[in-house]
Amino acid sequence: MTVVVALGGNALGSGTAAEQLVALRDTCAAIAPLVREGEVVVTHGNGPQVGNELLRQERAADEVPPLPLFLAVAQTQAEIGAMIETELAGAVGRPVACLLTHVHVAADDEAFERPTKPIGPFYSAEQAQTLEQERGWRLVEDAGRGYRRVVPSPRPLEIVELGSIRALLGAGAIAVACGGGGIPVVSRNGHLKGVDAVIDKDRASALLAERLGAERLVILTEVACVYRNYRKSNQQPIRELAAEEAEALLPELPEGSMRPKLEAAVAFARAGGETLITSSAALAEALRGESGTTIRL
Amino acid sequence: MTVVVALGGNALGSGTAAEQLVALRDTCAAIAPLVREGEVVVTHGNGPQVGNELLRQERAADEVPPLPLFLAVAQTQAEIGAMIETELAGAVGRPVACLLTHVHVAADDEAFERPTKPIGPFYSAEQAQTLEQERGWRLVEDAGRGYRRVVPSPRPLEIVELGSIRALLGAGAIAVACGGGGIPVVSRNGHLKGVDAVIDKDRASALLAERLGAERLVILTEVACVYRNYRKSNQQPIRELAAEEAEALLPELPEGSMRPKLEAAVAFARAGGETLITSSAALAEALRGESGTTIRL
Repeated sequence: MTVVVALGGNALGSGTAAEQLVALRDTCAAIAPLVREGEVVVTHGNGPQVGNELLRQERAADEVPPLPLFLAVAQTQAEIGAMIETELAGAVGRPVACLLTHVHVAADDEAFERPTKPIGPFYSAEQAQTLEQERGWRLVEDAGRGYRRVVPSPRPLEIVELGSIRALLGAGAIAVACGGGGIPVVSRNGHLKGVDAVIDKDRASALLAERLGAERLVILTEVACVYRNYRKSNQQPIRELAAEEAEALLPELPEGSMRPKLEAAVAFARAGGETLITSSAALAEALRGESGTTIRL
Repeated sequence: MTVVVALGGNALGSGTAAEQLVALRDTCAAIAPLVREGEVVVTHGNGPQVGNELLRQERAADEVPPLPLFLAVAQTQAEIGAMIETELAGAVGRPVACLLTHVHVAADDEAFERPTKPIGPFYSAEQAQTLEQERGWRLVEDAGRGYRRVVPSPRPLEIVELGSIRALLGAGAIAVACGGGGIPVVSRNGHLKGVDAVIDKDRASALLAERLGAERLVILTEVACVYRNYRKSNQQPIRELAAEEAEALLPELPEGSMRPKLEAAVAFARAGGETLITSSAALAEALRGESGTTIRL
Protein backbone atom coordinates (compact mmCIF):
# COMPACT_ATOMS: atom_id res chain seq x y z
CA MET A 1 0.00 0.00 0.00
CA THR A 2 1.35 3.41 -1.01
CA VAL A 3 -0.13 6.51 0.65
CA VAL A 4 0.49 10.22 0.18
CA VAL A 5 -0.44 12.32 3.22
CA ALA A 6 -0.76 16.07 2.59
CA LEU A 7 -0.50 18.25 5.69
CA GLY A 8 -2.33 21.59 5.65
CA GLY A 9 -1.62 24.67 7.75
CA ASN A 10 -3.65 23.41 10.69
CA ALA A 11 -1.62 20.21 10.91
CA LEU A 12 1.64 22.17 10.76
CA GLY A 13 0.76 24.74 13.41
CA SER A 14 1.86 28.35 13.46
CA GLY A 15 3.80 30.84 15.57
CA THR A 16 7.30 30.10 16.81
CA ALA A 17 9.21 26.98 15.84
CA ALA A 18 8.57 25.61 19.34
CA GLU A 19 4.83 26.12 18.86
CA GLN A 20 4.93 24.46 15.44
CA LEU A 21 6.81 21.50 16.91
CA VAL A 22 4.05 21.04 19.51
CA ALA A 23 1.37 21.05 16.79
CA LEU A 24 3.43 18.64 14.71
CA ARG A 25 3.82 16.27 17.62
CA ASP A 26 0.02 15.94 17.74
CA THR A 27 -0.22 15.62 13.98
CA CYS A 28 2.46 12.94 13.85
CA ALA A 29 0.73 11.00 16.63
CA ALA A 30 -2.51 11.24 14.61
CA ILE A 31 -0.98 10.03 11.34
CA ALA A 32 1.21 7.36 12.99
CA PRO A 33 -1.30 4.50 12.43
CA LEU A 34 -1.49 5.49 8.76
CA VAL A 35 2.25 5.75 8.15
CA ARG A 36 3.65 3.00 10.35
CA GLU A 37 3.69 0.55 7.45
CA GLY A 38 3.85 0.58 3.68
CA GLU A 39 5.21 3.24 1.38
CA VAL A 40 4.40 6.72 2.63
CA VAL A 41 5.16 10.19 1.37
CA VAL A 42 4.25 13.19 3.51
CA THR A 43 3.70 16.45 1.63
CA HIS A 44 2.88 19.80 3.19
CA GLY A 45 1.84 23.39 2.60
CA ASN A 46 4.00 26.41 3.41
CA GLY A 47 1.70 29.46 3.26
CA PRO A 48 2.52 31.18 6.58
CA GLN A 49 6.17 30.09 6.51
CA VAL A 50 6.90 31.42 3.02
CA GLY A 51 5.02 34.60 3.91
CA ASN A 52 7.26 35.04 6.96
CA GLU A 53 10.36 34.34 4.93
CA LEU A 54 9.44 36.86 2.23
CA LEU A 55 8.86 39.46 4.92
CA ARG A 56 12.30 38.70 6.41
CA GLN A 57 13.87 39.07 2.97
CA GLU A 58 12.25 42.48 2.53
CA ARG A 59 13.16 43.81 5.96
CA ALA A 60 16.85 43.02 5.38
CA ALA A 61 16.83 43.96 1.69
CA ASP A 62 19.12 46.96 2.19
CA GLU A 63 21.76 44.77 3.79
CA VAL A 64 21.58 41.36 2.11
CA PRO A 65 20.14 40.50 -1.30
CA PRO A 66 16.61 39.04 -1.15
CA LEU A 67 16.34 35.55 -2.59
CA PRO A 68 14.01 34.86 -5.50
CA LEU A 69 10.67 33.36 -4.48
CA PHE A 70 11.56 29.89 -5.75
CA LEU A 71 14.48 29.74 -3.29
CA ALA A 72 12.27 30.97 -0.46
CA VAL A 73 9.99 28.03 -1.30
CA ALA A 74 13.08 25.79 -1.12
CA GLN A 75 13.95 27.24 2.30
CA THR A 76 10.51 26.41 3.66
CA GLN A 77 10.79 22.81 2.40
CA ALA A 78 13.80 22.39 4.68
CA GLU A 79 12.47 24.46 7.59
CA ILE A 80 9.16 22.58 7.77
CA GLY A 81 10.66 19.28 6.59
CA ALA A 82 13.20 19.31 9.42
CA MET A 83 10.41 19.74 11.96
CA ILE A 84 8.24 17.02 10.39
CA GLU A 85 11.21 14.68 10.13
CA THR A 86 12.27 14.79 13.78
CA GLU A 87 8.71 14.59 15.12
CA LEU A 88 7.59 11.85 12.73
CA ALA A 89 10.69 9.69 13.19
CA GLY A 90 10.14 9.92 16.95
CA ALA A 91 6.44 9.03 16.62
CA VAL A 92 6.71 6.04 14.30
CA GLY A 93 10.25 4.70 14.78
CA ARG A 94 10.91 4.55 11.04
CA PRO A 95 13.56 6.51 9.17
CA VAL A 96 12.18 9.69 7.64
CA ALA A 97 13.93 11.43 4.72
CA CYS A 98 13.10 14.92 3.50
CA LEU A 99 13.93 15.42 -0.16
CA LEU A 100 14.17 18.81 -1.84
CA THR A 101 11.55 18.61 -4.57
CA HIS A 102 11.28 20.49 -7.83
CA VAL A 103 8.15 20.33 -9.95
CA HIS A 104 8.05 20.95 -13.69
CA VAL A 105 5.60 23.54 -14.93
CA ALA A 106 5.03 24.71 -18.51
CA ALA A 107 6.75 27.97 -19.42
CA ASP A 108 3.61 28.80 -21.41
CA ASP A 109 1.16 27.89 -18.64
CA GLU A 110 -1.58 30.51 -18.86
CA ALA A 111 -1.09 31.24 -15.13
CA PHE A 112 2.04 33.23 -16.06
CA GLU A 113 -0.15 35.65 -18.01
CA ARG A 114 -2.47 36.12 -15.10
CA PRO A 115 -0.79 35.93 -11.65
CA THR A 116 -3.48 35.48 -9.00
CA LYS A 117 -1.89 34.07 -5.86
CA PRO A 118 -1.25 36.78 -3.18
CA ILE A 119 1.99 36.24 -1.28
CA GLY A 120 4.28 38.00 1.21
CA PRO A 121 3.89 41.28 3.10
CA PHE A 122 1.61 44.26 2.42
CA TYR A 123 2.97 47.44 0.84
CA SER A 124 1.84 51.04 0.44
CA ALA A 125 0.69 52.27 -2.99
CA GLU A 126 4.01 54.05 -3.42
CA GLN A 127 6.09 51.02 -2.47
CA ALA A 128 3.95 48.89 -4.77
CA GLN A 129 4.75 51.16 -7.71
CA THR A 130 8.49 51.04 -6.96
CA LEU A 131 8.43 47.24 -6.67
CA GLU A 132 6.57 46.90 -9.97
CA GLN A 133 9.16 49.07 -11.68
CA GLU A 134 12.31 47.78 -10.00
CA ARG A 135 11.58 44.10 -9.70
CA GLY A 136 8.94 43.54 -12.35
CA TRP A 137 6.50 42.24 -9.74
CA ARG A 138 2.76 42.46 -10.11
CA LEU A 139 0.92 43.88 -7.09
CA VAL A 140 -2.78 44.20 -6.42
CA GLU A 141 -4.76 46.06 -3.82
CA ASP A 142 -6.13 43.86 -1.06
CA ALA A 143 -9.33 45.37 0.38
CA GLY A 144 -8.13 48.04 2.80
CA ARG A 145 -4.94 46.24 3.86
CA GLY A 146 -2.62 47.68 1.21
CA TYR A 147 -0.94 46.22 -1.84
CA ARG A 148 0.33 42.70 -2.09
CA ARG A 149 2.42 40.81 -4.61
CA VAL A 150 0.55 38.27 -6.71
CA VAL A 151 2.35 35.37 -8.39
CA PRO A 152 1.31 32.73 -10.91
CA SER A 153 0.03 29.35 -9.73
CA PRO A 154 0.83 27.09 -12.69
CA ARG A 155 -0.27 23.49 -13.08
CA PRO A 156 2.24 20.87 -11.87
CA LEU A 157 3.33 18.58 -14.73
CA GLU A 158 6.06 16.27 -13.41
CA ILE A 159 7.89 15.67 -10.15
CA VAL A 160 11.59 16.11 -11.00
CA GLU A 161 12.87 13.88 -8.15
CA LEU A 162 10.28 11.10 -8.62
CA GLY A 163 12.96 8.40 -9.07
CA SER A 164 14.73 9.53 -5.91
CA ILE A 165 11.47 9.51 -3.93
CA ARG A 166 10.89 5.93 -5.15
CA ALA A 167 14.42 5.00 -4.06
CA LEU A 168 13.80 6.36 -0.56
CA LEU A 169 10.51 4.48 -0.28
CA GLY A 170 12.16 1.32 -1.59
CA ALA A 171 14.74 1.60 1.18
CA GLY A 172 11.98 1.71 3.80
CA ALA A 173 12.05 5.42 4.60
CA ILE A 174 9.03 7.65 4.95
CA ALA A 175 9.69 10.45 2.46
CA VAL A 176 8.82 14.10 3.05
CA ALA A 177 8.54 15.71 -0.38
CA CYS A 178 6.80 18.32 -2.53
CA GLY A 179 6.74 20.82 0.35
CA GLY A 180 4.83 23.99 -0.50
CA GLY A 181 3.75 22.33 -3.76
CA GLY A 182 7.38 21.93 -4.86
CA ILE A 183 9.90 24.39 -6.29
CA PRO A 184 8.49 25.34 -9.70
CA VAL A 185 10.97 24.87 -12.56
CA VAL A 186 10.93 25.13 -16.33
CA SER A 187 13.40 23.59 -18.78
CA ARG A 188 15.68 25.99 -20.59
CA ASN A 189 18.60 24.89 -22.81
CA GLY A 190 18.81 21.56 -21.04
CA HIS A 191 18.94 23.18 -17.59
CA LEU A 192 16.20 23.39 -15.02
CA LYS A 193 15.49 26.95 -14.04
CA GLY A 194 13.54 28.01 -10.96
CA VAL A 195 10.60 30.31 -11.61
CA ASP A 196 8.85 32.70 -9.28
CA ALA A 197 5.50 31.04 -8.85
CA VAL A 198 3.77 28.81 -6.34
CA ILE A 199 2.20 25.46 -7.07
CA ASP A 200 -0.89 24.42 -5.18
CA LYS A 201 0.26 21.76 -2.72
CA ASP A 202 -2.86 19.60 -3.12
CA ARG A 203 -2.50 19.51 -6.91
CA ALA A 204 1.19 18.62 -6.53
CA SER A 205 0.31 15.95 -3.96
CA ALA A 206 -2.30 14.40 -6.28
CA LEU A 207 0.22 14.39 -9.15
CA LEU A 208 2.81 12.73 -6.90
CA ALA A 209 0.26 10.15 -5.73
CA GLU A 210 -0.64 9.41 -9.34
CA ARG A 211 2.96 9.10 -10.52
CA LEU A 212 3.82 6.81 -7.59
CA GLY A 213 0.80 4.64 -8.34
CA ALA A 214 -0.41 5.29 -4.79
CA GLU A 215 -3.69 3.76 -3.67
CA ARG A 216 -4.55 6.60 -1.37
CA LEU A 217 -4.16 10.33 -0.91
CA VAL A 218 -5.05 11.72 2.52
CA ILE A 219 -5.50 15.51 2.69
CA LEU A 220 -5.48 16.87 6.24
CA THR A 221 -7.20 20.21 6.62
CA GLU A 222 -9.12 22.25 9.22
CA VAL A 223 -12.45 20.51 8.87
CA ALA A 224 -13.40 16.88 9.53
CA CYS A 225 -15.01 16.50 6.11
CA VAL A 226 -16.43 18.31 3.10
CA TYR A 227 -19.82 19.87 3.72
CA ARG A 228 -22.73 20.77 1.53
CA ASN A 229 -23.89 24.33 2.36
CA TYR A 230 -20.80 24.88 4.52
CA ARG A 231 -21.41 27.21 7.48
CA LYS A 232 -25.08 27.62 6.64
CA SER A 233 -27.94 26.44 8.80
CA ASN A 234 -28.49 23.48 6.50
CA GLN A 235 -24.81 22.44 6.51
CA GLN A 236 -24.49 18.71 5.78
CA PRO A 237 -21.40 16.50 6.03
CA ILE A 238 -20.54 14.51 2.92
CA ARG A 239 -19.10 11.07 3.61
CA GLU A 240 -18.60 9.81 0.08
CA LEU A 241 -18.36 11.44 -3.32
CA ALA A 242 -17.99 9.97 -6.76
CA ALA A 243 -15.56 11.97 -8.93
CA GLU A 244 -18.45 13.28 -11.02
CA GLU A 245 -20.43 14.42 -7.99
CA ALA A 246 -17.32 16.08 -6.58
CA GLU A 247 -16.83 17.93 -9.84
CA ALA A 248 -20.44 19.14 -9.81
CA LEU A 249 -19.91 20.44 -6.28
CA LEU A 250 -16.83 22.53 -7.14
CA PRO A 251 -18.56 25.80 -8.13
CA GLU A 252 -20.25 26.15 -4.74
CA LEU A 253 -17.00 25.70 -2.78
CA PRO A 254 -14.84 28.63 -1.64
CA GLU A 255 -11.91 29.24 -4.00
CA GLY A 256 -8.48 28.68 -2.48
CA SER A 257 -9.63 26.47 0.39
CA MET A 258 -11.73 23.36 -0.22
CA ARG A 259 -11.99 23.76 -3.97
CA PRO A 260 -8.37 22.91 -4.91
CA LYS A 261 -8.51 19.91 -2.53
CA LEU A 262 -11.57 18.55 -4.27
CA GLU A 263 -10.09 19.30 -7.70
CA ALA A 264 -6.98 17.34 -6.69
CA ALA A 265 -9.18 14.50 -5.43
CA VAL A 266 -11.11 14.41 -8.72
CA ALA A 267 -7.86 14.27 -10.72
CA PHE A 268 -6.53 11.47 -8.52
CA ALA A 269 -9.82 9.54 -8.73
CA ARG A 270 -9.61 9.66 -12.55
CA ALA A 271 -6.12 8.14 -12.20
CA GLY A 272 -7.61 5.29 -10.17
CA GLY A 273 -6.85 6.50 -6.63
CA GLU A 274 -8.95 7.27 -3.60
CA THR A 275 -8.74 10.51 -1.61
CA LEU A 276 -9.71 11.04 2.01
CA ILE A 277 -10.24 14.65 3.10
CA THR A 278 -10.37 15.14 6.87
CA SER A 279 -8.68 16.82 9.85
CA SER A 280 -5.89 15.41 12.04
CA ALA A 281 -8.37 15.35 14.93
CA ALA A 282 -10.93 13.33 12.97
CA LEU A 283 -8.42 11.08 11.19
CA ALA A 284 -8.79 8.09 13.52
CA GLU A 285 -12.58 8.16 13.07
CA ALA A 286 -12.19 8.70 9.35
CA LEU A 287 -9.91 5.67 9.03
CA ARG A 288 -12.72 3.64 10.65
CA GLY A 289 -15.12 5.05 8.06
CA GLU A 290 -16.94 7.24 10.59
CA SER A 291 -15.78 10.68 9.47
CA GLY A 292 -14.03 12.43 6.59
CA THR A 293 -15.00 12.58 2.94
CA THR A 294 -13.81 9.91 0.54
CA ILE A 295 -13.63 10.69 -3.16
CA ARG A 296 -13.26 7.88 -5.67
CA LEU A 297 -14.21 7.05 -9.22
CA MET B 1 34.32 4.27 -6.78
CA THR B 2 32.59 6.45 -4.16
CA VAL B 3 33.60 10.10 -3.85
CA VAL B 4 32.52 12.89 -1.52
CA VAL B 5 33.07 16.38 -2.94
CA ALA B 6 32.96 19.22 -0.40
CA LEU B 7 32.30 22.68 -1.87
CA GLY B 8 33.71 25.68 -0.01
CA GLY B 9 32.57 29.29 -0.17
CA ASN B 10 34.62 30.04 -3.24
CA ALA B 11 32.99 27.22 -5.20
CA LEU B 12 29.51 28.38 -4.15
CA GLY B 13 29.96 32.06 -5.01
CA SER B 14 28.43 34.97 -3.17
CA GLY B 15 26.11 37.94 -3.70
CA THR B 16 22.69 37.54 -5.26
CA ALA B 17 21.22 34.16 -6.16
CA ALA B 18 21.89 34.95 -9.83
CA GLU B 19 25.56 35.60 -9.03
CA GLN B 20 25.81 32.38 -7.02
CA LEU B 21 24.25 30.43 -9.90
CA VAL B 22 26.94 31.79 -12.25
CA ALA B 23 29.70 30.68 -9.84
CA LEU B 24 28.04 27.30 -9.44
CA ARG B 25 27.84 26.80 -13.17
CA ASP B 26 31.65 27.07 -13.33
CA THR B 27 32.07 24.83 -10.29
CA CYS B 28 29.75 22.19 -11.71
CA ALA B 29 31.61 22.25 -15.03
CA ALA B 30 34.86 21.78 -13.08
CA ILE B 31 33.62 18.84 -11.02
CA ALA B 32 31.72 17.21 -13.89
CA PRO B 33 34.60 14.83 -14.86
CA LEU B 34 34.79 13.73 -11.21
CA VAL B 35 31.07 13.16 -10.70
CA ARG B 36 29.94 11.86 -14.07
CA GLU B 37 30.31 8.26 -12.92
CA GLY B 38 30.30 6.27 -9.70
CA GLU B 39 28.68 7.10 -6.40
CA VAL B 40 29.00 10.78 -5.59
CA VAL B 41 27.86 12.92 -2.68
CA VAL B 42 28.31 16.68 -2.88
CA THR B 43 28.52 18.48 0.46
CA HIS B 44 28.86 22.22 0.95
CA GLY B 45 29.47 25.05 3.39
CA ASN B 46 26.91 27.73 4.23
CA GLY B 47 28.81 30.50 6.07
CA PRO B 48 27.67 33.60 4.16
CA GLN B 49 24.19 32.18 3.50
CA VAL B 50 23.42 31.35 7.12
CA GLY B 51 24.86 34.74 8.13
CA ASN B 52 22.47 36.43 5.71
CA GLU B 53 19.56 34.38 6.95
CA LEU B 54 20.25 35.17 10.61
CA LEU B 55 20.41 38.85 9.72
CA ARG B 56 17.04 38.57 7.94
CA GLN B 57 15.55 36.86 10.99
CA GLU B 58 16.75 39.71 13.22
CA ARG B 59 15.55 42.51 10.99
CA ALA B 60 12.02 41.09 10.94
CA ALA B 61 12.05 39.90 14.56
CA ASP B 62 9.39 42.41 15.65
CA GLU B 63 6.98 41.10 13.03
CA VAL B 64 7.64 37.36 12.66
CA PRO B 65 9.32 35.01 15.14
CA PRO B 66 13.00 34.31 14.35
CA LEU B 67 13.76 30.65 13.73
CA PRO B 68 16.26 28.83 15.91
CA LEU B 69 19.73 28.52 14.37
CA PHE B 70 19.31 24.83 13.57
CA LEU B 71 16.35 25.65 11.31
CA ALA B 72 18.28 28.46 9.65
CA VAL B 73 20.94 25.83 8.87
CA ALA B 74 18.16 23.67 7.42
CA GLN B 75 16.99 26.59 5.26
CA THR B 76 20.45 27.04 3.80
CA GLN B 77 20.68 23.34 2.94
CA ALA B 78 17.66 23.82 0.68
CA GLU B 79 18.61 27.25 -0.64
CA ILE B 80 22.12 26.20 -1.67
CA GLY B 81 21.11 22.62 -2.47
CA ALA B 82 18.48 23.82 -4.95
CA MET B 83 21.09 25.89 -6.78
CA ILE B 84 23.64 23.05 -6.81
CA GLU B 85 21.00 20.57 -7.95
CA THR B 86 19.79 22.47 -11.00
CA GLU B 87 23.30 23.46 -12.13
CA LEU B 88 24.84 20.05 -11.52
CA ALA B 89 22.03 18.09 -13.17
CA GLY B 90 22.42 20.35 -16.20
CA ALA B 91 26.19 19.89 -16.28
CA VAL B 92 26.38 16.11 -15.90
CA GLY B 93 23.03 14.82 -17.15
CA ARG B 94 22.52 12.60 -14.09
CA PRO B 95 19.72 12.92 -11.55
CA VAL B 96 20.74 14.96 -8.51
CA ALA B 97 18.91 14.64 -5.19
CA CYS B 98 19.33 17.01 -2.27
CA LEU B 99 18.57 15.39 1.06
CA LEU B 100 17.98 17.30 4.27
CA THR B 101 20.70 15.99 6.58
CA HIS B 102 20.84 15.89 10.36
CA VAL B 103 24.04 15.01 12.17
CA HIS B 104 24.20 13.56 15.68
CA VAL B 105 26.34 15.39 18.18
CA ALA B 106 26.88 14.52 21.86
CA ALA B 107 24.80 16.56 24.30
CA ASP B 108 27.88 16.58 26.53
CA ASP B 109 30.33 17.61 23.80
CA GLU B 110 32.71 20.03 25.48
CA ALA B 111 32.02 22.57 22.70
CA PHE B 112 28.70 23.34 24.41
CA GLU B 113 30.62 24.60 27.43
CA ARG B 114 32.76 26.84 25.32
CA PRO B 115 31.01 28.30 22.23
CA THR B 116 33.65 29.65 19.84
CA LYS B 117 32.13 29.96 16.37
CA PRO B 118 31.04 33.56 15.54
CA ILE B 119 27.85 33.70 13.51
CA GLY B 120 25.27 36.22 12.26
CA PRO B 121 25.21 40.02 12.40
CA PHE B 122 27.10 42.43 14.64
CA TYR B 123 25.42 44.10 17.61
CA SER B 124 26.10 47.06 19.91
CA ALA B 125 27.21 46.40 23.50
CA GLU B 126 23.70 47.26 24.69
CA GLN B 127 21.98 44.95 22.18
CA ALA B 128 24.46 42.23 23.11
CA GLN B 129 23.48 42.47 26.75
CA THR B 130 19.76 42.28 25.92
CA LEU B 131 20.27 39.26 23.66
CA GLU B 132 22.29 37.46 26.35
CA GLN B 133 19.52 38.04 28.85
CA GLU B 134 16.47 37.48 26.64
CA ARG B 135 17.67 34.64 24.44
CA GLY B 136 20.44 33.09 26.49
CA TRP B 137 22.94 33.72 23.68
CA ARG B 138 26.62 34.15 24.27
CA LEU B 139 28.16 37.17 22.51
CA VAL B 140 31.78 38.24 22.25
CA GLU B 141 33.40 41.44 21.09
CA ASP B 142 34.94 41.22 17.63
CA ALA B 143 37.89 43.63 17.32
CA GLY B 144 36.27 47.01 16.66
CA ARG B 145 33.28 45.68 14.70
CA GLY B 146 30.92 45.18 17.63
CA TYR B 147 29.51 42.15 19.38
CA ARG B 148 28.72 38.89 17.69
CA ARG B 149 26.98 35.71 18.74
CA VAL B 150 29.23 32.70 19.25
CA VAL B 151 27.85 29.16 19.06
CA PRO B 152 29.31 25.75 19.82
CA SER B 153 30.94 23.70 17.07
CA PRO B 154 30.55 20.14 18.35
CA ARG B 155 32.11 17.05 16.80
CA PRO B 156 29.91 15.19 14.30
CA LEU B 157 29.20 11.62 15.46
CA GLU B 158 26.75 10.05 13.01
CA ILE B 159 24.89 11.05 9.86
CA VAL B 160 21.20 10.50 10.68
CA GLU B 161 20.12 9.98 7.06
CA LEU B 162 23.05 7.71 6.07
CA GLY B 163 20.75 4.89 4.92
CA SER B 164 18.74 7.30 2.77
CA ILE B 165 21.90 8.74 1.20
CA ARG B 166 22.97 5.18 0.35
CA ALA B 167 19.55 4.52 -1.19
CA LEU B 168 19.86 7.60 -3.42
CA LEU B 169 23.36 6.58 -4.53
CA GLY B 170 22.17 3.04 -5.15
CA ALA B 171 19.47 4.41 -7.45
CA GLY B 172 22.08 6.26 -9.51
CA ALA B 173 21.53 9.77 -8.22
CA ILE B 174 24.23 12.21 -7.21
CA ALA B 175 23.31 13.15 -3.65
CA VAL B 176 23.68 16.63 -2.17
CA ALA B 177 23.88 16.19 1.60
CA CYS B 178 25.36 17.46 4.87
CA GLY B 179 25.00 21.08 3.76
CA GLY B 180 26.54 23.53 6.23
CA GLY B 181 27.93 20.54 8.15
CA GLY B 182 24.43 19.16 8.74
CA ILE B 183 21.67 20.14 11.16
CA PRO B 184 23.05 19.31 14.61
CA VAL B 185 20.76 17.08 16.68
CA VAL B 186 20.91 15.30 20.01
CA SER B 187 18.73 12.41 21.18
CA ARG B 188 16.24 13.16 23.90
CA ASN B 189 13.55 10.69 25.09
CA GLY B 190 13.72 8.83 21.81
CA HIS B 191 13.26 12.00 19.75
CA LEU B 192 15.86 13.88 17.78
CA LYS B 193 16.08 17.48 18.87
CA GLY B 194 17.77 20.24 16.90
CA VAL B 195 20.42 22.20 18.79
CA ASP B 196 21.78 25.66 18.15
CA ALA B 197 25.29 24.90 17.03
CA VAL B 198 27.19 24.58 13.77
CA ILE B 199 29.20 21.58 12.67
CA ASP B 200 32.34 22.11 10.63
CA LYS B 201 31.44 21.03 7.09
CA ASP B 202 34.81 19.42 6.40
CA ARG B 203 34.60 17.28 9.54
CA ALA B 204 31.04 16.27 8.62
CA SER B 205 32.15 15.51 5.05
CA ALA B 206 35.02 13.30 6.28
CA LEU B 207 32.63 11.46 8.61
CA LEU B 208 30.19 10.94 5.75
CA ALA B 209 32.98 9.72 3.46
CA GLU B 210 34.12 7.28 6.16
CA ARG B 211 30.62 5.94 6.86
CA LEU B 212 29.95 5.49 3.13
CA GLY B 213 33.25 3.65 2.71
CA ALA B 214 34.23 6.23 0.11
CA GLU B 215 37.64 5.96 -1.53
CA ARG B 216 38.05 9.67 -1.93
CA LEU B 217 37.18 12.99 -0.36
CA VAL B 218 37.75 16.10 -2.48
CA ILE B 219 37.72 19.40 -0.60
CA LEU B 220 37.39 22.42 -2.88
CA THR B 221 38.66 25.64 -1.37
CA GLU B 222 40.22 28.97 -2.41
CA VAL B 223 43.76 27.75 -2.92
CA ALA B 224 45.15 25.19 -5.39
CA CYS B 225 46.90 23.24 -2.63
CA VAL B 226 48.19 23.33 0.94
CA TYR B 227 51.34 25.40 1.36
CA ARG B 228 54.18 25.34 3.79
CA ASN B 229 54.86 28.91 5.03
CA TYR B 230 51.64 30.12 3.39
CA ARG B 231 51.84 33.73 2.13
CA LYS B 232 55.44 34.10 3.19
CA SER B 233 58.37 34.62 0.82
CA ASN B 234 59.37 31.00 1.22
CA GLN B 235 55.85 29.64 0.52
CA GLN B 236 56.04 26.10 -0.83
CA PRO B 237 53.26 24.00 -2.33
CA ILE B 238 52.75 20.58 -0.78
CA ARG B 239 51.74 17.88 -3.26
CA GLU B 240 51.52 14.88 -0.95
CA LEU B 241 51.19 14.40 2.79
CA ALA B 242 51.13 11.30 4.90
CA ALA B 243 48.58 11.51 7.70
CA GLU B 244 51.33 11.86 10.29
CA GLU B 245 53.05 14.67 8.41
CA ALA B 246 49.70 16.42 7.99
CA GLU B 247 49.12 16.18 11.71
CA ALA B 248 52.53 17.67 12.45
CA LEU B 249 51.71 20.56 10.13
CA LEU B 250 48.42 21.46 11.86
CA PRO B 251 49.76 23.90 14.50
CA GLU B 252 51.27 26.20 11.88
CA LEU B 253 48.05 26.45 9.86
CA PRO B 254 45.50 29.25 10.37
CA GLU B 255 42.59 28.14 12.57
CA GLY B 256 39.21 28.07 10.86
CA SER B 257 40.51 27.88 7.31
CA MET B 258 43.02 25.21 6.25
CA ARG B 259 43.36 23.57 9.65
CA PRO B 260 39.90 21.92 9.86
CA LYS B 261 40.34 20.68 6.27
CA LEU B 262 43.60 19.00 7.12
CA GLU B 263 42.16 17.63 10.36
CA ALA B 264 39.29 16.14 8.36
CA ALA B 265 41.78 14.70 5.87
CA VAL B 266 43.82 13.12 8.67
CA ALA B 267 40.70 11.53 10.19
CA PHE B 268 39.66 10.18 6.77
CA ALA B 269 43.18 8.88 6.05
CA ARG B 270 43.09 6.94 9.33
CA ALA B 271 39.82 5.40 8.10
CA GLY B 272 41.57 4.27 4.92
CA GLY B 273 40.54 7.07 2.54
CA GLU B 274 42.40 9.59 0.45
CA THR B 275 41.71 13.34 0.50
CA LEU B 276 42.47 15.84 -2.24
CA ILE B 277 42.50 19.50 -1.23
CA THR B 278 42.45 21.93 -4.16
CA SER B 279 40.45 24.71 -5.84
CA SER B 280 37.79 24.35 -8.56
CA ALA B 281 40.14 26.14 -10.93
CA ALA B 282 43.01 23.73 -10.27
CA LEU B 283 40.88 20.58 -10.05
CA ALA B 284 41.52 19.36 -13.60
CA GLU B 285 45.28 19.64 -13.05
CA ALA B 286 44.96 18.08 -9.62
CA LEU B 287 43.10 15.09 -11.05
CA ARG B 288 46.09 14.60 -13.41
CA GLY B 289 48.37 14.72 -10.34
CA GLU B 290 49.82 18.11 -11.27
CA SER B 291 48.29 20.24 -8.54
CA GLY B 292 46.43 19.97 -5.24
CA THR B 293 47.50 18.28 -2.02
CA THR B 294 46.74 14.61 -1.47
CA ILE B 295 46.59 13.28 2.09
CA ARG B 296 46.67 9.54 2.71
CA LEU B 297 47.85 7.08 5.28
